[in-house]
Amino acid sequence: MQLLETTFWSAGGSRHGMAERLGFSKSKANTLIAGLIEQGLLAESGLQESSGGRRAENLQLHSGLGVLIGVDVGATSLDVAVLRPDLTPLAQHAEAADVRQGPGVVLARVRTLMRELLAQCGFGAKDVLGIGVGVPGPVNFAIGQLVNPPLMPAWDSFSIRDYLREEYVAPVFVDNDVNLMALGELWRLRRSLSNFLVIKVGTGIGCGIVCHGEVYRGAAGSAGDVGHICVDQEGPRCHCGNVGCVEAMAAGPAITRMAIEAANAGESVALATCLREKGRIDAIDVGEASRAGDAAANGIIQRAGNLIGQMLASVVNFFNPSHVFIGGGITRIGPLFLAAVRQSVYQRSLALSTRHLEIQYTPLGTQGGVIGAGVLALHETLKVRGVAP
Amino acid sequence: MQLLETTFWSAGGSRHGMAERLGFSKSKANTLIAGLIEQGLLAESGLQESSGGRRAENLQLHSGLGVLIGVDVGATSLDVAVLRPDLTPLAQHAEAADVRQGPGVVLARVRTLMRELLAQCGFGAKDVLGIGVGVPGPVNFAIGQLVNPPLMPAWDSFSIRDYLREEYVAPVFVDNDVNLMALGELWRLRRSLSNFLVIKVGTGIGCGIVCHGEVYRGAAGSAGDVGHICVDQEGPRCHCGNVGCVEAMAAGPAITRMAIEAANAGESVALATCLREKGRIDAIDVGEASRAGDAAANGIIQRAGNLIGQMLASVVNFFNPSHVFIGGGITRIGPLFLAAVRQSVYQRSLALSTRHLEIQYTPLGTQGGVIGAGVLALHETLKVRGVAP
Repeated sequence: MQLLETTFWSAGGSRHGMAERLGFSKSKANTLIAGLIEQGLLAESGLQESSGGRRAENLQLHSGLGVLIGVDVGATSLDVAVLRPDLTPLAQHAEAADVRQGPGVVLARVRTLMRELLAQCGFGAKDVLGIGVGVPGPVNFAIGQLVNPPLMPAWDSFSIRDYLREEYVAPVFVDNDVNLMALGELWRLRRSLSNFLVIKVGTGIGCGIVCHGEVYRGAAGSAGDVGHICVDQEGPRCHCGNVGCVEAMAAGPAITRMAIEAANAGESVALATCLREKGRIDAIDVGEASRAGDAAANGIIQRAGNLIGQMLASVVNFFNPSHVFIGGGITRIGPLFLAAVRQSVYQRSLALSTRHLEIQYTPLGTQGGVIGAGVLALHETLKVRGVAP
Repeated sequence: MQLLETTFWSAGGSRHGMAERLGFSKSKANTLIAGLIEQGLLAESGLQESSGGRRAENLQLHSGLGVLIGVDVGATSLDVAVLRPDLTPLAQHAEAADVRQGPGVVLARVRTLMRELLAQCGFGAKDVLGIGVGVPGPVNFAIGQLVNPPLMPAWDSFSIRDYLREEYVAPVFVDNDVNLMALGELWRLRRSLSNFLVIKVGTGIGCGIVCHGEVYRGAAGSAGDVGHICVDQEGPRCHCGNVGCVEAMAAGPAITRMAIEAANAGESVALATCLREKGRIDAIDVGEASRAGDAAANGIIQRAGNLIGQMLASVVNFFNPSHVFIGGGITRIGPLFLAAVRQSVYQRSLALSTRHLEIQYTPLGTQGGVIGAGVLALHETLKVRGVAP
């Protein structure tokens, strides 16, 4: 149903605006809208600012449709949110987690959090319209299962969908976490950009691709697996078996490894102090040391940014996106990382590809995952119900 | 006009088949078809094999629509063909050329060839429905001009469209040569594949991208510019200013350079003989020496194939295509090159991306360029005439 789809992507609008956008006549639009209102799918909420003449009603997805649940399972984090059909969060929760504990432990926690968050805002299992789940590995989207996930082997072929459906009648949709970030950005941008990338840098490195205005998943669902692009033929061996993968050299664990080496080699007082006091160093600590002027920390961030920029330069030459949004844990490391990425890309990519290219941190920040999961849940639910294309 | 579009992409079919494919009722389809036949756009040609019952007419684009001209300007070659609306070549010609002579010289020759080929099959300028031109550089598709083409600086911002329009009223469409090869494959495949790549290896290296069933040109029209992806940080300097670009290390001129080095170093009798007798060595000579068992020639081909495979591994990880078709002059070098490309890709790409990946030489061969130019000409002409979407 084009009309419902347009209302969703445009986050509401007037009857007149909708009809215009879809090239429908006023009478055709009015008939369709009346039908959707009768079915309880659309609602007229208040009055829109008018440019003169009759005031137009603002159409929105009906809040009585129910609520959405967005789940973002990261390698080391877990985010769950209850959202309205217009993606406003009603309740949400974030905590540290370890995906390697396996689906039994992690999803039991997800189920508890879902129950608690629903109760917090006065809803129950029957009010849930759809559930979206993002996971940090390659997903067969059609069946909602992970396929050979390198970071989480215990999840291979586990049916997240069946597990969560024990408690909910609502449909469950599972996708790669970065695809959901891309879907979230597409929603935030009201689909105003057609060709862009979202790069997530955390424990691993992945890429969400938007092509011709749609999330692109590839022939086997593994598109965007940029973490294992080679940036150094003489580089260290990666867990995938190859050498010089950008993920092995520049993601979170590599930053930690470089920081520990710098601390132990006496190259950085700040990092050595951190290691002694906390017993560990993570990317945020390196970011803090860098902001305090630590030269070794600066060097590590620049090296990671340059390597990721080098990978990105290949991808930009190939895909020529208009925007690259960088998200994931790395964004908390500060602006120096972004500058290093930009430097590498602008140096290594062709002029025509970078002339209008924007590289920035993703504006949705850590919210991107659950928002994207909510978008997936609503969009796919409307589709299976036969009311969205 | 969906119906015309479907007739074109499916290379004809029965009324019933068309209606079914488009989800139209029989009566709606019949009304639309009658209109298109009246406008002289569709024709009923003969009778289709029937599976019983009434025999169905075979619908095709009307041959009276006129002819198409496909032009494929390569860096060192020129192909021109006159084609029927169903892309059957009526007359064609191929010759060596040097694109660096500039648009004045090359396009004057194109104009002469167009006139001669039309005359050969009994047509004149007024019978031309549309003209498609492929060029070996980045094109601003909307205005039909090359933008900073590295191989052909004299063509920058030259209006190929205006030049050819002096003699023809038919619309002229210009695109990158590899995009046209991709369009040609899409037509050959009757759009049965949605996500694939066409790599052209000749003087340069370029890539045509098909995504969601459409040729993807990128945000600035430079998508697929894979020739300047870095495969060796310590590699030689490329004309683009960077080091280790795959084009500088593995395209035609690099193969020639390696062959001359091998000949001069006394590593290959076959290559030395070729150099002495012909005064030069090209990729085809290296292919011949290799097929005759020359170890140095084998080594050169393997090295070029491995480097291109290394670049392709990055692209396959990112894009996860179902097929990669390799075309351009390199295909005449023989099967060893293809084997070396495959070896690198299967070794360097992720298992999920390569599980069902097919890498092969493009079945359209050297015809791909002019066929693609014909597809572009017809498709875009129907569009500007308002009868295709």
